[in-house]
Amino acid sequence: MRALVLDGIPRLVPDLPVPALAPGEALVAVRVAGICDTDLQLARGYMNFRGVPGHEFVGEVLEADDRSLVGARVVADINAGCGTCASCTSERGHHCQTRSVLGILGRSGAFAEQLTIPDRCLVRVPDELDDDGAVFAEPLAAALHVLDEAATRSARTAVVLGDGKLGLLIALALHASGLRTTVVGRHAEKLSLAAAAGIATCLEGDDAPRGADLVVEATGSEKGLAAALTLVRPRGTVVLKTTVAAPFSVDLSPVVIHEITLIGSRCGDMQRAVDVLSRNEVDPRPLIGARYPLSRADAAFEHAGRRGSLKILVDVGSTAAP
Amino acid sequence: MRALVLDGIPRLVPDLPVPALAPGEALVAVRVAGICDTDLQLARGYMNFRGVPGHEFVGEVLEADDRSLVGARVVADINAGCGTCASCTSERGHHCQTRSVLGILGRSGAFAEQLTIPDRCLVRVPDELDDDGAVFAEPLAAALHVLDEAATRSARTAVVLGDGKLGLLIALALHASGLRTTVVGRHAEKLSLAAAAGIATCLEGDDAPRGADLVVEATGSEKGLAAALTLVRPRGTVVLKTTVAAPFSVDLSPVVIHEITLIGSRCGDMQRAVDVLSRNEVDPRPLIGARYPLSRADAAFEHAGRRGSLKILVDVGSTAAP
Repeated sequence: MRALVLDGIPRLVPDLPVPALAPGEALVAVRVAGICDTDLQLARGYMNFRGVPGHEFVGEVLEADDRSLVGARVVADINAGCGTCASCTSERGHHCQTRSVLGILGRSGAFAEQLTIPDRCLVRVPDELDDDGAVFAEPLAAALHVLDEAATRSARTAVVLGDGKLGLLIALALHASGLRTTVVGRHAEKLSLAAAAGIATCLEGDDAPRGADLVVEATGSEKGLAAALTLVRPRGTVVLKTTVAAPFSVDLSPVVIHEITLIGSRCGDMQRAVDVLSRNEVDPRPLIGARYPLSRADAAFEHAGRRGSLKILVDVGSTAAP
Repeated sequence: MRALVLDGIPRLVPDLPVPALAPGEALVAVRVAGICDTDLQLARGYMNFRGVPGHEFVGEVLEADDRSLVGARVVADINAGCGTCASCTSERGHHCQTRSVLGILGRSGAFAEQLTIPDRCLVRVPDELDDDGAVFAEPLAAALHVLDEAATRSARTAVVLGDGKLGLLIALALHASGLRTTVVGRHAEKLSLAAAAGIATCLEGDDAPRGADLVVEATGSEKGLAAALTLVRPRGTVVLKTTVAAPFSVDLSPVVIHEITLIGSRCGDMQRAVDVLSRNEVDPRPLIGARYPLSRADAAFEHAGRRGSLKILVDVGSTAAP
């Protein structure tokens, strides 16, 4: 099969073997896949990644133990756990110690014609949700997961730091969940996408509102956390949504003095994300910046890496010829 | 009155004016006061502190608007808020923006013959609790406050990093609250105090138990947080109990990857601490390292500043002569 492979710079491979199916796994033909900043980090060597990246996708089931799934249009929880440990039985295996993670850790990803994933990770996409909406299910699940904590559930006001793909999606998710939300970013034209959805916006450097119940750090920069600590109210919550994959210098004394809660947040509930998208409570389509066929996935990665680019999609299923 | 004053090095002043009483405030004759690491930091210039330090005390009410309090033996919540804001009406004013804090911020403290504090901050000490127990009410309230968060309430296993005064008291508090607790420290003789109470101990450098639901950082050192992040389980909680009052370098990517909750924690409920001490569920008296009369409070500070020293008490009421 054709696939994009990371091993140094991204390159297209025309004849990669289709991943072998393990018991309980489904074979899925990818239709559309989205490029996430994590993919760009993997391309730069994060986690010493080698192989096919891609964990945001919508596809069609070709084979599955559960025959009723064959032919279904699906998205998937990207964490493929052992299925039996405490994490797998109580929290969808998101912290299973032996899990693989689609396109990130020990499992070939979605920038390929086909992928494998356990049946139990699959979530059906209803007819009313098109591919361009469904491909956002994974990042939207992560965005909605911000509100899954006891410390964030009662929040009424939120500031999102970062107007990147994820920051904007988080702002849309919080706004749709009823929080009075402000997104702070560097790009007027990207902030206008949030404003169009009714979200308050603020250019970095201008006075952002202080005293928020919840601040979500989605800048991916070292300065984000320090800024978050100045904007959150005492006993408020800062959710870290992006990793800075290296030590950096920060003054955490405000965390103690103001008794702030800091929570790391990763993947969320895919079924909920599909439901929210299907009901059109969040429309992520304005976040699509460009689309490329799989044959030009390397160009798609180059585009996604440009400063300020929006979500770049790769059409896999619709490009039969290279 | 006699008092210890910080203004550069600690020095005794024989004739400091008694603080003026504001409406709603009580005048309290200090009986015993304890030296906290915060006092040592104030002596080193933290918060540009000038004046009388001291926030751990037990005393006797000399004057109060509420006449029934006169003559009562009391401890006090050290946060004196405005009494009307949201923080004051819902969380004892611990984050009131205009609060003074006894011996720390805008209010003369307990290393003096007398202090003032709002009536509403006072908590009566029952007869069965002696002064040497009651003087620990403030730090014990802070220790028990670790379990006041939604994220910590369900914890069953805990590791406390640091065998200083506060670390040991937190270990005693968590153990008394039913958590399977391990305290990690540098001093075999101090760890033996925890062991005598039935708490598991571990010398720094030896293998501490991993996968704890809760890790409490009470080392006051830059390395503490990084160590805590290696010991807590995925989706577990790290409580920061000590401040490092400067930026330091730390890798927070495990917080996101393992979805760890980090909570800053300061003062707690004084009434609960008095109740726990009165029922003898926590006996802090083995933590007393030495005691000095107020006339030698400067020597008491010098002693408290020595590496590895336990709780140093200052007898105020029992030393009528200088």
